[in-house]
Amino acid sequence: MYLNYLQEEFYGRPLIIADRELCESNIDNILKEAKNKDVALLVVGDPLGATTHTDMLLRAKQFEVKTQIVHNASIINAVSCCGLQLYNFGETISIPYWTETWKPDSFYDKIVQNFSRNLHTLCLLDIKVKEPTEESLTKKVRQYMDPKFMSVKEAASQLVQIIKRKPDTGITMDTIAVGLSRVGAPDQTIAVKSLREMQQCDLGPPLHSLVIPAPNLHPLELDYLAHFR
Amino acid sequence: MYLNYLQEEFYGRPLIIADRELCESNIDNILKEAKNKDVALLVVGDPLGATTHTDMLLRAKQFEVKTQIVHNASIINAVSCCGLQLYNFGETISIPYWTETWKPDSFYDKIVQNFSRNLHTLCLLDIKVKEPTEESLTKKVRQYMDPKFMSVKEAASQLVQIIKRKPDTGITMDTIAVGLSRVGAPDQTIAVKSLREMQQCDLGPPLHSLVIPAPNLHPLELDYLAHFR
Repeated sequence: MYLNYLQEEFYGRPLIIADRELCESNIDNILKEAKNKDVALLVVGDPLGATTHTDMLLRAKQFEVKTQIVHNASIINAVSCCGLQLYNFGETISIPYWTETWKPDSFYDKIVQNFSRNLHTLCLLDIKVKEPTEESLTKKVRQYMDPKFMSVKEAASQLVQIIKRKPDTGITMDTIAVGLSRVGAPDQTIAVKSLREMQQCDLGPPLHSLVIPAPNLHPLELDYLAHFR
Repeated sequence: MYLNYLQEEFYGRPLIIADRELCESNIDNILKEAKNKDVALLVVGDPLGATTHTDMLLRAKQFEVKTQIVHNASIINAVSCCGLQLYNFGETISIPYWTETWKPDSFYDKIVQNFSRNLHTLCLLDIKVKEPTEESLTKKVRQYMDPKFMSVKEAASQLVQIIKRKPDTGITMDTIAVGLSRVGAPDQTIAVKSLREMQQCDLGPPLHSLVIPAPNLHPLELDYLAHFR
């Protein structure tokens, strides 16, 4: 994800491999260079999963720079490794890190809507990288917090707090959830537990994702999930 | 998609590359062979996008054959090439080929539900391969129809017929749709037109997909779609 800015030869043609951070802060300069050189931007997941890259492509058009997208697996489809069928997923949601004073829960209503339509919900979990510390915000030199990646455990715990605030949605602490970590890597882990139990479930290093399955599953989905209980 | 059954050496180890049809009809034999040899099954899209392969993995477990999944891009995420954001997609639906006597439209209600929740709908279009002809069903020797792949044009025309039967859903013939063909290939084509116009829109050879976007789009989605009008 955080590659350096490299100048390489690629089949005899000059090639720049740019990292995402550089592209966000310096995209115009890179696009100017791209008039004469090939530029490759390597990203995690599908290149168009995030608005950042759609925006870049629009800028490239303004600069009359030709672009080519090489699609890739992303968590949006690789989540199928838990055995839940892709066409039974509803809207994907994101669970943000809560703070002492900011505890949003609007994403929960979307989970409830999917659940009531018998659809699974893929919950993308918050990532904090390059977040300036509060103290450094007023200073000249920015200091950054250590990167933070929300775990399945933390996500389940936030969800349980919302369930207590919003009962009678059909989703309870005993609703089954699927925790996934490092999907696609050799040490990929999948756990199937109630949300209550998931609060204590350590799935190891990041990245983590959480799925709230539909209430009524296909027999094949049930068979497959049973292997991770 | 329809590879032959090959016996190859792969880094000095015996490797079988099996095609999907063979796997469906002959999976137990292949799993027996997989005890001593590496078997690779190549598929189009993400390997777990279809129940067929989930089922195979369960069978492999019964045979105590170790499996490894290599995820891949699939239309579920590559559809993002049209500029519509992946997390704004609702449930994916399939549009089947109608016959003279069989014209199901239950998928339309799902499009309407997504639309009313301001979500996009990816419509997967029907594929008919290895369909026996009606005459050959009673004969010993099966004869097969030519393969058929539903086009965006055909899908739009079926949708327009449903709209006439079911008005007042919010979706009309003037609702904008996105037609996509051969996503990921060098001759990939994207067209943005009303459903009425889409009935006349030829996007060339298969495979085709259709998207019914949400009624209220993000400014970036609008900017991006504008390039395909």
